[in-house]
This record gives sequence, C-alpha cells and structure tokens, in this order.
Amino acid sequence: MTKTIQGIAASGGIAIAKAYRLETPNLVVEKKAVSDPQAEVARFEAAVAKAKEELEIIKQHALQQLGEDKAAIFAAHLLVLNDPELLNPIKEKIETERVNAEYALNETATMFVSMFEAMDNEYMKERAADIRDVTKRVLAHLLGVTISNPSLISEEVVIIAEDLTPSDTAQLNRQYVKGFATDIGGRTSHSAIMARSMEIPAVVGTKQVTTEIQNGDIVIIDGLDGHVIVNPSEDVLAQYEEKRARYEAQKAEWAKLVHEKTVTSDGYHVELAANIGTPDDVKGVLENGAEGIGLYRTEFLYMGRSELPTEEEQFEAYKTVLERMEGKPVVVRTLDIGGDKELPYLDLPKEMNPFLGFRAIRLCLEMQDMFRTQLRALLRASVYGNLKIMFPMIATLDEFRQAKAILLEEKEKLQREGVPVADDIEVGMMVEIPAAAVLADQFAKEVDFFSIGTNDLIQYTMAADRMNERVSYLYQPYNPAILRLISNVIDAAHKEGKWAGMCGEMAGDAIAIPILLGLGLDEFSMSATSILRARSQMKKLSKEEAASFKETVLSMSTAEEVVAFVKQKFHIE
Amino acid sequence: MTKTIQGIAASGGIAIAKAYRLETPNLVVEKKAVSDPQAEVARFEAAVAKAKEELEIIKQHALQQLGEDKAAIFAAHLLVLNDPELLNPIKEKIETERVNAEYALNETATMFVSMFEAMDNEYMKERAADIRDVTKRVLAHLLGVTISNPSLISEEVVIIAEDLTPSDTAQLNRQYVKGFATDIGGRTSHSAIMARSMEIPAVVGTKQVTTEIQNGDIVIIDGLDGHVIVNPSEDVLAQYEEKRARYEAQKAEWAKLVHEKTVTSDGYHVELAANIGTPDDVKGVLENGAEGIGLYRTEFLYMGRSELPTEEEQFEAYKTVLERMEGKPVVVRTLDIGGDKELPYLDLPKEMNPFLGFRAIRLCLEMQDMFRTQLRALLRASVYGNLKIMFPMIATLDEFRQAKAILLEEKEKLQREGVPVADDIEVGMMVEIPAAAVLADQFAKEVDFFSIGTNDLIQYTMAADRMNERVSYLYQPYNPAILRLISNVIDAAHKEGKWAGMCGEMAGDAIAIPILLGLGLDEFSMSATSILRARSQMKKLSKEEAASFKETVLSMSTAEEVVAFVKQKFHIE
Repeated sequence: MTKTIQGIAASGGIAIAKAYRLETPNLVVEKKAVSDPQAEVARFEAAVAKAKEELEIIKQHALQQLGEDKAAIFAAHLLVLNDPELLNPIKEKIETERVNAEYALNETATMFVSMFEAMDNEYMKERAADIRDVTKRVLAHLLGVTISNPSLISEEVVIIAEDLTPSDTAQLNRQYVKGFATDIGGRTSHSAIMARSMEIPAVVGTKQVTTEIQNGDIVIIDGLDGHVIVNPSEDVLAQYEEKRARYEAQKAEWAKLVHEKTVTSDGYHVELAANIGTPDDVKGVLENGAEGIGLYRTEFLYMGRSELPTEEEQFEAYKTVLERMEGKPVVVRTLDIGGDKELPYLDLPKEMNPFLGFRAIRLCLEMQDMFRTQLRALLRASVYGNLKIMFPMIATLDEFRQAKAILLEEKEKLQREGVPVADDIEVGMMVEIPAAAVLADQFAKEVDFFSIGTNDLIQYTMAADRMNERVSYLYQPYNPAILRLISNVIDAAHKEGKWAGMCGEMAGDAIAIPILLGLGLDEFSMSATSILRARSQMKKLSKEEAASFKETVLSMSTAEEVVAFVKQKFHIE
Repeated sequence: MTKTIQGIAASGGIAIAKAYRLETPNLVVEKKAVSDPQAEVARFEAAVAKAKEELEIIKQHALQQLGEDKAAIFAAHLLVLNDPELLNPIKEKIETERVNAEYALNETATMFVSMFEAMDNEYMKERAADIRDVTKRVLAHLLGVTISNPSLISEEVVIIAEDLTPSDTAQLNRQYVKGFATDIGGRTSHSAIMARSMEIPAVVGTKQVTTEIQNGDIVIIDGLDGHVIVNPSEDVLAQYEEKRARYEAQKAEWAKLVHEKTVTSDGYHVELAANIGTPDDVKGVLENGAEGIGLYRTEFLYMGRSELPTEEEQFEAYKTVLERMEGKPVVVRTLDIGGDKELPYLDLPKEMNPFLGFRAIRLCLEMQDMFRTQLRALLRASVYGNLKIMFPMIATLDEFRQAKAILLEEKEKLQREGVPVADDIEVGMMVEIPAAAVLADQFAKEVDFFSIGTNDLIQYTMAADRMNERVSYLYQPYNPAILRLISNVIDAAHKEGKWAGMCGEMAGDAIAIPILLGLGLDEFSMSATSILRARSQMKKLSKEEAASFKETVLSMSTAEEVVAFVKQKFHIE
C-alpha cells in the first residue's frame, strides 16, 4: 500500500531504492553482580572475537569499495581490540569486583577515553575516538543489540535514519547510497547541507520515517517536493520514474550553462557565487561555473585539531583558494566560532543561549591575538587574487570600526616589514543581526559591501532557533518582515554606491530568487551545486518585471501570501 | 584607602554601612573509607548537634525579627534533624559500608530528596527543600566550612555577594539590609528587579565586589550611578552623605505627586502604569499612584506548584486585581512560560537556545487546554474592571489570528452558557520580536493595542542574551536600531488609531523617557517604585520639544551619540 510521508525538501532529485535503516543502538549499561566471574570473562572474550571478525570483513570491504583512507579507520579499530593494555584491566575488573562484562568494559573504556582526550595531542585524541567506537561494537555484541555498518552496503539503497552525523556519512559509499530521509533536521541542518554537497536527493524533518519504514521497503525520496513514498504502487512508481527522468534531463540542460555569464532576460548581470569551507571545495565551485566565492567559511581551518592554526597554515589555505580562483572575487569571512560551533581548545564557558552569546566578532575583538593572526594571513595572501574580507555578527558600528582598525593596524605593520599587501581589498560585513539590517544606512557609509546572512538573520528576526524542531514553523525566509529588512539593506548599500550580496541558504532558493532580483540584490552566493539551476532560472527572469512587484510584496502581511503571489507571477512549480 | 568599583546601577539611592559577605560555600563531598566507623558516627552526631544549636538560635531570632512565617522555615529544619528515619540510615551506611559521614549523609539525603521531589504533592516537595537545606548545614559543619546565615543579621549592613537567589532574599531583614552589590547580573536580573521592589539601593555586575570587599569594610553603594566605594575617606563619606540627603529630599518631593495625573509641561497627558506579578503587588501600584497596570505577568500563578492552576484559582486572582484597580486599565499578558521560566510539571524538553525556543504563545497555541483555561478565567473576570488582554512573543500575524480566534471561541462558549463577559475587552499583543516590530503596520490593522517589551526586543534585535555577562555590552536600549523599531511600532499604531505602550525596563529609564515621549509613546509601564520619579520628570518635559528631536535621534549611528545628545538637550545628570 503506497504511503506518503511529508518532510522538508533538503536536496533536489528523485531516488528510488530499497530502504536501509541506520539504527541508533540503545546501549544502556547496568551494573550487575555475577556469581561466576570466569564465565563472564569468557563471555567478554567471545564478544571481542565476534567484533574482530566483523571488523575484518568491514575492513576488507572498505579497502575494495572506499579506498585505503577509510579502511585505515577499521584497521585502527582492530588494533584496539588486540591491545592487552585495554583488555586485561577489563578482565581483572570482572574477576576482582565480580561485575558483569558490560559494566567492566564501559568503566574501563570511559577511563581510557577521558585520559586520552585530556591529552593535548591530536594522535591520542583519535585513539580516544577509536576506543569509543570499538567499545560500542563490543557492547552491542554483549547486549545482543544490532548496530548498523553502513560501510558494508553493497547494493543500491536509500538511507532511513533518525539523523545523520558526520561519522555516519564518512562510511557511506556514494556509489550505492542513492538518497536519504531523516526524522529530524531542517534545510540548514548538517545532514541537509551534506546531501546537497553529495548531490543526492534528501528529505529531512519527516518526524516519522524511522517508525514507518522497514528494511527492504521500496522507497521513493522526492527531494524536489519533500515527499517520501513507501512501497509505491506500479502507477506511482512509473510516475516518479518519469519525474526522475525529467529532472535528469533538466540537469543536463543546466550543465551547458557552466561557462556562461548570469544575465537576466532583460540583460542585467547578477553575480552567482558559491559558499565554501575549505580549499578542496574550489574544485566544485569551478566545475559548477560560479563567478566567484561569496562566502569562504574559515572556521574549518580551526576545527578538528588541538590548537589554533598558525599564520603560515592559514596563509597557505587562503593563497591556495585565491590562486585557484584566478582573479575571481573571493569573499573571506573572518572566524565565526562560538554558538553551535565550538573549539574545544579555546575552552569557552558553556552558555545558556549560545546563539545569542559570545561568538564570531564578539570573541575575535576580545581574543585579539587569534584575530590578528588570521588578518595577517589574509593580508599576506591578498596579493594572490581578488580578496574581499568581511566580519561576521556585526551588531553595532563600534564593532565594525574596531575590527577594521585592527585590520588596518596589521596592514601597516606588514607594510613596514616590507611584506606586499594588495591595496584594493574591500572590507565589508555580514548583515545577520536585525540591528545591523535596521541601521544599514549608517553602516553603508563605512563598509565597502554587505553580505546578508539569511540563516541567522531569519532566526534572530523571528526569535526562533533554526535548529529547534518545535519552532521550525517560524523559520520563514519569505516573511515580509525579513524581505523588508533585506530590501532596506540593499537600498542602503546602493544609496552609498556599495554592493549587497547574500550568502545564506535563501540566495539559492527558487522562490526567493525572483524576489531578491526584484529587490536589487547584486550577488547571490549559494551551494556550488545550486549555481547552474539558479543561472538557468535567472536567464528566464526579467529584472524589471521582478522589480515592479517590489512594493506589492513588501506590503504583504504573511509569508503564505508572498509565496502564493510569487509562484503565480513567476510560474514556479 | 578609598577604592571605587564600577558596576551597573540597578536600584536608585545611596546606602552606607558595613559589608556583610554572603558566602556561597564549597561543599564538595568525596567518598573515603574510614577505619573506625563508630568514631565516624560520633563525628556525624556532633555535627548534627551543632547544626541544631545554630538552628535554634536562628529560629528564635527569626521569630523576633522576621515574624512567625519565616521562623516556621527553621522550625521545619529542626524537625528534619530530629527525624530518625533520615538519621538512622545515615549511621547505618557509615557502619556497614565503612564510609565517611559526609558521603553517607550526602547519598542518603540525595535519595530522600529525589524520592520526595518525584511525588506529585506540594507538601512533600517542600520537605525535599528542607532536607536539602539541612544537609548543607550539617555538611558545612562536617567539612569545617562556614555558611552565611543572613537571617541572623542584627545591625545595619550592605550585602556583598556573587549573586542573590530568591531563597537568599527570603531571609533578609529589610530593617537591617540597606543595600547590596553583586559580582554578576544586569539591570533585568532577578537581584536587580528585587532591589527595586524592596526599594533599596543596588549595584550589580561589578565582577569584583566579592574579591575586593571584606566583612566589616565600610561600603557606599551608589545605586544612582552604579558605583561601589570601599572604605571611603572622610571627604568622600561626607560627600555621599550629602548625596544621600539630596536623594531622600527628592523622594519626598516625588511622594507629593501620588494623586496627580501625568501631564507634560505643554499639557499632554501620558499614562504611567505599573508592572505586577501577583494580586499582592496592587498595594504598591496604588501607593505609588500608577494610572493603571500595563503588564500583569500571569506566570507566577503557574510557578512554585506541582500542577496547573485551575480556572477558578485564576479567576479569583484576575478578579482581585481588577476589583482593586477600581476601573483603571489592567493589561494582562497571557502565559509567558518557557525560555528561562520553566514549569517542572509541564516536562518540556531541554532546548539548546531556550530564548529562541518553544515558549509563550508558541507553547499556548499547542497546549490549547491550558491556554483556553486561562482565557476563560480572564473572560469571566472581565466584568469586574477594565480588562485588556495581550499575547506574548507574537512573531507572525498567523499566530495573533489564531490566539484571537481561540479567545473569541471561549467568549462565545461562555456567553452561550449564560456567563457574563465584558463587551469592550481590548485585545493586543506584545511587540518583543523584531519581525513584529518591522511589520507593525500590518499587525496594527488587527490588534487593539501594542505593548513593546523592550527586554526581549533588545536581546533579539542585538542577538545578545541579556543574561550573558560576556555580551552585556550589546544590551543597548538607546541603540538607534532599537529606537527606529520602537518609532515604527508607535507610528503604525497611531496610523490605525490604536495606542502603543511599553512594558520593558526601558519605559522607566530617565534617559529613555524624553526619547519615548518624543516618539509619541502613549503608555509607559514600569516598576511601581519608578512611577513617581517618572511623573516628576514628565511634568518638566515638553512633548513638542521632545518630538522636535525625533528625526535627529533616529538618524544617529550609535547608542553613545544618542545618550550624549539626550543628556545635553534635557539636562540629565
């Protein structure tokens, strides 16, 4: 019986395949007394043996399917399971304390994990992660619980999961994983962003795929409209196969636009740029024909390590990106850490509302050594391409003035040292705090450009955490209040002869694009994989027609009204 | 040597007295093996005996100084220390497990506390609180740590503390406590609000009073300018004694205004209303000559209990307030729970950013039974006075429409049942979310009034948690972005013939008052204790002059500029 589940369309395309449930195992450990410790040690050894067998299979499989890199993870896990320094204390604990194997394993492993994690050494921290993974696997055997091994997937599937973590996806084989659907998450959650970068269809936030879908069910994931269809009838299946074919044909059409400029039907040029996180992402940027990088998130340089990156490391990364972009504009956002992005080695205090807390520019203005190191690296790299610098989370003009003054100080220092620095670096700011959007006319006098960060701007303007499912109905990009703020920012920039871009998810959204074009947005920065679709759409739009609807849209009272109007006027869907 | 510490002026006036440090004791319990359990039991019994002696003294003292009410708390504590059902298991634990008394006490007490707290019974929950307090006291004796007994204070002091909790202040004797200074907190923290309601001077957020001030130091607390002066010289002391006298004289002047209307020097009337939390607060409202209640926070009806209040309980509370106000307007805000205000019996999930979460109207629209009960109680009470109802945290017109529709449904139901309901209840909304402020023109068509909640509006507009010390510099009521939003709300209301009030801390602020008057605000709702000062200030202001500065102020670029301009133009300070 065909069943349709509605969710949030997170990554375009249609996938049709068997369901593969990625289980989150329930590994609760209780302390129990055992009367026969010898038997318990034997039970523990049997579980270890089974885990080893399993890991051998996974390792072989990973070697063939995913390459040496990923296989090495499992080789490391096997080493842990052969390490007497871990295994002996567990057995001793079972014997001397007469406790169950689960408890002895969990206590001992937790001790080792904390010990290794406390060390200021990247290698030991990885060992801690290995022990944690291996402990889960052995525990699962002891408890008789099944854990998923997505790296073993060897046929075409769609993944059904509560949520996908970065470690889950490291194990996914793109050859076989055709799409995924999750219970939780929104358009800007980790899993959604990943699906778009893997270019596979995804539907998130369905609330019920894990309860409604069994392993082996035939599942259609419609990442265009946010539907998940379970066990479709012949008719429905045929209908979606046709929809998939149409979508593939369309993608092929889009691919032809890779070397074209983005020009509207009435001849206006707008810039379509891409958001990146690392120098490796530049490849996708160029393949998708972006005209520049509108947002280089520098956080990744600081993450997954045990200390701050050096000036030299940063310089290399920035230089690489600038060189590969061959003179196309590259807008680098200075460190936006804090909030949901933590750096363990900075040891910042826990906050009650991290999204309203000590983060981004607030933190950089206080931790100036760290900030100055980044700025020096950027300034030194500036001679290798077309660099623009912007500061995140600016709320007041004071903050912008302070940040810019620090930048100029470092520039002068470098110049005194005889280090070449580009003379035409534009210095702008993210507009993602309502106060900055409201006061954009004042900011526009002092910045070279604005880049509107809609993900945060929407969450603050609506006072709704975009990661919180219970208030997700308030994440409304088309709310007229949001559109008015965006319009205010663009008008303020133009009045002072500056340009305004956007680097939130909204910039690549098919319904938002005609509105933003009409409001006069100059630069649209989005996931690289959205560029060609957006260019195709833009070529069919008339900027003057879009602009003629500006006042109408801005005087509407709800997001629903806006969406209905835009869909009708621009024939969307 | 005179030392001056700068903090945040939280409650007006000057206090001069000896310092009394309210210590937060460090009661960390370690598990230790003991070789002589009998001696350990004796040590435990000695600590209990000392705690009892101490409690007897405190009880007698409380009886004389604070009344029977407060003394009963300590009588209950003494009962706990005489209860063999608590004491015997502790002694047994020491003997059978051969552990130290601290550990045995802590483990046993924690078990009882969890057991009592889990019971759905108010009485048992109070017993849990008693056990927790008594455990701390005995632990302190065992560990040789001093704990403060503020109820024993018998001479004039100023309290020096890291922070003040509600339970600390329950023990304070207003006769002797002349003021206080804390390390943490801002103008809207619990301790600041309490100081204003106790009408004693306070300076909060000093970051250093507990490290810089010793017991017995002579301390001046200047709650007007936010200074704390330690061990002042003769000169400084004389100077502050004079300042105190001036302030007292001014207060006496203000007191004469209690029965006057609030009229500006050029003859315009504005309404000065008060914010309240419980029917008991109406006394202070009337004593301070408020012209109405601009914000009745109904949360307190729901707090400190184990289940939702019944319709009848709520009806009685609302009726009492309306009757006591004798026809003066009473604006009731429907339940604003969630965020930092939790109700344990609702069992809401923990959120990562509660201030951006599932709270207030968001929660009421989903938990409709609870919401409808409150609305019915309000509607039934409406015939006893001049009731206005407003909904908190409205972000979209949809939410307002839904809330109003539910109110009308309940009204019709009551009318069908033959229950009398007033016909002229105004239905408005809080404007505390930037989206609502930006779109105020659309909302104004459908509401009867706006009440601007500046505490939240500022924190969302600046994206800065007002409880978070590290971003407290961004809590800027005078930021031009905030003033523009407020101006937009007032203009939108007036264009549709509606009125606009304000019920945040800002409404009673001496620098904000001329600005808000100039922007055309109709109603100012503040702490009852600020009313007379505000009335005195208002009588000296010309509304037309204030309005003439509107455009100048709204086109400024920083809060500092605004403050400097207003202080100069209106001769403030």
